Amino acid sequence: MPMVQVTMLAGRTVEQKRKLAQRITDALVEEAGAKREAIVVAINEVSRESYATGGVLMADK
Amino acid sequence: MPMVQVTMLAGRTVEQKRKLAQRITDALVEEAGAKREAIVVAINEVSRESYATGGVLMADK
Amino acid sequence: MPMVQVTMLAGRTVEQKRKLAQRITDALVEEAGAKREAIVVAINEVSRESYATGGVLMADK
Amino acid sequence: MPMVQVTMLAGRTVEQKRKLAQRITDALVEEAGAKREAIVVAINEVSRESYATGGVLMADK
Amino acid sequence: MPMVQVTMLAGRTVEQKRKLAQRITDALVEEAGAKREAIVVAINEVSRESYATGGVLMADK
Amino acid sequence: MPMVQVTMLAGRTVEQKRKLAQRITDALVEEAGAKREAIVVAINEVSRESYATGGVLMADK
Repeated sequence: MPMVQVTMLAGRTVEQKRKLAQRITDALVEEAGAKREAIVVAINEVSRESYATGGVLMADK
Repeated sequence: MPMVQVTMLAGRTVEQKRKLAQRITDALVEEAGAKREAIVVAINEVSRESYATGGVLMADK
Repeated sequence: MPMVQVTMLAGRTVEQKRKLAQRITDALVEEAGAKREAIVVAINEVSRESYATGGVLMADK
Repeated sequence: MPMVQVTMLAGRTVEQKRKLAQRITDALVEEAGAKREAIVVAINEVSRESYATGGVLMADK
Repeated sequence: MPMVQVTMLAGRTVEQKRKLAQRITDALVEEAGAKREAIVVAINEVSRESYATGGVLMADK
Repeated sequence: MPMVQVTMLAGRTVEQKRKLAQRITDALVEEAGAKREAIVVAINEVSRESYATGGVLMADK
């Protein structure tokens, strides 16, 4: 029963999230032998003011 | 100082969250010997468009 | 399909983890209306060298 | 710079993890427009004594 | 490529988050030898109704 | 009561972790007004076989 948490900037469409969840789930089923119905994918969206790379907020780039 | 993170669909009432936090904390104190005042519980709510099981968004079920 | 992640110091017995998982799951079923078979609980154990409160490693207390 | 955390039972081979990381990364690039080199995937393996579904440890099933 | 997730009550200003991300990143570069451009910091803000310590929601204190 | 989770490759010394925990805690106290004794830092170490950037395991680089 794998759990997948994706943390990314907010702003993806529902269609993008739908495809992401499908493909990540497919990968777990086909590559790791997980049972499809037992896989959970949560997408955790963060704002540009709450996400930094290299020490700099995305809002400042 | 255990940290507990609960990821679930948005939509629970404050009273439901209150009870959840109480009971999870009680379980850690009584079963694992944790100090009550040191336990943190965070409830991370996700939307139906950001949560999938079996590769299908909750919004599509 | 709630996901629960518990981060705590290593060292609990299997029996303690068994009880913790049961009671956390019961709380989600009874207080938040979650379906029992859909609840996942993962216990993430960390060593005393990898866990700090108040800025001080547990290994140094 | 998306971060992906996969929590699953220990026991996958390196080849399985390699494929998982590739395919999850591909999905983020192709479906969500993420930059490949900015994607991080961490696989967090838990033991059967630290993972429960339906309130029952995997070790007890 | 270290990933840092900070879970805290909502309400910090952008300037506070900017400083936090800078200093956490500096610490990883200077103390752990991480490459600056590879460090991701995500700040996950939770409401007072979704955060409890000692089993009591912040909203009830 | 902020919770900080750092996910990074295994292999840091205790002294490195000690400094990291201190400085991350200091940053939260000084920049975000958090109470020192309420801050938890957990360092989650992953192996080179369980960590990928750009879709490639660290073990393969």
